[in-house]
Amino acid sequence: MESDLKFARNLGDWMAATDRFARSLGIRLVESGPGSCRAEMTIREEMLNSLGMAHGGATYSLADFAFAVACNTRRQAAVALNTTMVYTAAGRLGDRLVAIAGEESLGKRTATYRIRIERDGGDLLALFTGTAYRRDDEITRYMEG
Amino acid sequence: MESDLKFARNLGDWMAATDRFARSLGIRLVESGPGSCRAEMTIREEMLNSLGMAHGGATYSLADFAFAVACNTRRQAAVALNTTMVYTAAGRLGDRLVAIAGEESLGKRTATYRIRIERDGGDLLALFTGTAYRRDDEITRYMEG
Amino acid sequence: MESDLKFARNLGDWMAATDRFARSLGIRLVESGPGSCRAEMTIREEMLNSLGMAHGGATYSLADFAFAVACNTRRQAAVALNTTMVYTAAGRLGDRLVAIAGEESLGKRTATYRIRIERDGGDLLALFTGTAYRRDDEITRYMEG
Amino acid sequence: MESDLKFARNLGDWMAATDRFARSLGIRLVESGPGSCRAEMTIREEMLNSLGMAHGGATYSLADFAFAVACNTRRQAAVALNTTMVYTAAGRLGDRLVAIAGEESLGKRTATYRIRIERDGGDLLALFTGTAYRRDDEITRYMEG
Repeated sequence: MESDLKFARNLGDWMAATDRFARSLGIRLVESGPGSCRAEMTIREEMLNSLGMAHGGATYSLADFAFAVACNTRRQAAVALNTTMVYTAAGRLGDRLVAIAGEESLGKRTATYRIRIERDGGDLLALFTGTAYRRDDEITRYMEG
Repeated sequence: MESDLKFARNLGDWMAATDRFARSLGIRLVESGPGSCRAEMTIREEMLNSLGMAHGGATYSLADFAFAVACNTRRQAAVALNTTMVYTAAGRLGDRLVAIAGEESLGKRTATYRIRIERDGGDLLALFTGTAYRRDDEITRYMEG
Repeated sequence: MESDLKFARNLGDWMAATDRFARSLGIRLVESGPGSCRAEMTIREEMLNSLGMAHGGATYSLADFAFAVACNTRRQAAVALNTTMVYTAAGRLGDRLVAIAGEESLGKRTATYRIRIERDGGDLLALFTGTAYRRDDEITRYMEG
Repeated sequence: MESDLKFARNLGDWMAATDRFARSLGIRLVESGPGSCRAEMTIREEMLNSLGMAHGGATYSLADFAFAVACNTRRQAAVALNTTMVYTAAGRLGDRLVAIAGEESLGKRTATYRIRIERDGGDLLALFTGTAYRRDDEITRYMEG
């Protein structure tokens, strides 16, 4: 069996290639490791809301992608149970956002991750906390498809 | 001054027309009233994740749009402070989702809304709770722009 | 096997009698049914915070008790995975609070409940959303102890 | 004017002395600084739930106290807007819990904190995220009373 690090990298590459919504938003995987992920997205015109700021749904989608990668690096197929998003500053057109996901706890059935969304340069735009349900089947089942 | 109901309808129409992210996802306003909103979206191929299910970010974006309309019908410009999303079932390709937003509380500075995301036919896919910060300026300032 | 309604009532009575923290706060069960619960608590001096308002932890504890009853009425032993509390108004000394819990979704492994905390008279003090993990064992195992 | 550190320490001492609910639970302030707080509580018999585990409301109350101290060290009177609690392990009778609160963002009107609840020895029991509303008045107005 490949090492945990190698598996986490392959899983991240596979998700970046096959997650159609992430692809449509131009989300790029930067790196992934066991329980962690770093991904980027640039705010484009079609991601703005009526006030001309980055839409909360776009910022959330970047966080959610990093969450999905991080929790699936643990091999059991994992799906989001619930998530909380705290918005601390508004994203703007052209901002390059980075999502940094880390694991807070890993149980048999559930696991919790925390994702910081920062603007290039370092200020915090949003703080995401997500809990995933870990199913009985392995994510590799989908990767081989 | 127009009636609250007329204003809420105009605000909904304006947001549906000017929210570029909502437009890119094909989100349609069904109706809006004072503190409430109903909006729809159909799950398209480019909204799927790596497991072939509706991406959490897409479902969230529909809820977030209904939340934004509902809280801005109260005239003060309102922005999301934080949101919680509980996923109860997975959306699938072709599903027509409806988001139904209602007001739980309306204070001078903050207001809280709850949005149910249902699949056409009625089963619950997700439950969203959002709190908005109500700024000093009026949303009409942007509508006239 | 007793009917679902009868079981829900017995479960509520048992939890009200054996939950030591709820008892220490003077929490009273009003009624319980399949997936639902109504409980009350009066704000006493020792539940105030430094500003002289009801402590968030006291109000939360009432909501959490109603949540625990509601999710355990479904027979599988259920424990809290995560909860969100939105505070909309401050409780005051002598207020009689009522928590009204209802079921939003019931899955094999997780279930979600929503609890409104109202002041006697009807205004909303807080809105609680909780997701429980449903274990393999039955809650009756503890009730017989 | 006293230094920020000195003020944060005084504020923590004042809250520990005047928060009646925290006192009734035996919560002890360990230290407080600008935007931060560390507090402890030992799980006593009257904090158990019907399953014999630490009641979620008791664990939450410890987190909420650390949150209240941390956000009020910034001088503007701050009250909880909303909180999210993720439970990762169960507390047991006699456990000494420590809550470690840190500031994630500090805005003019809102501020966000994150509190880890650990069991003595280091394992994570719960992860709390709280957003406070910062009012116009200063907390010192209450301290002088």
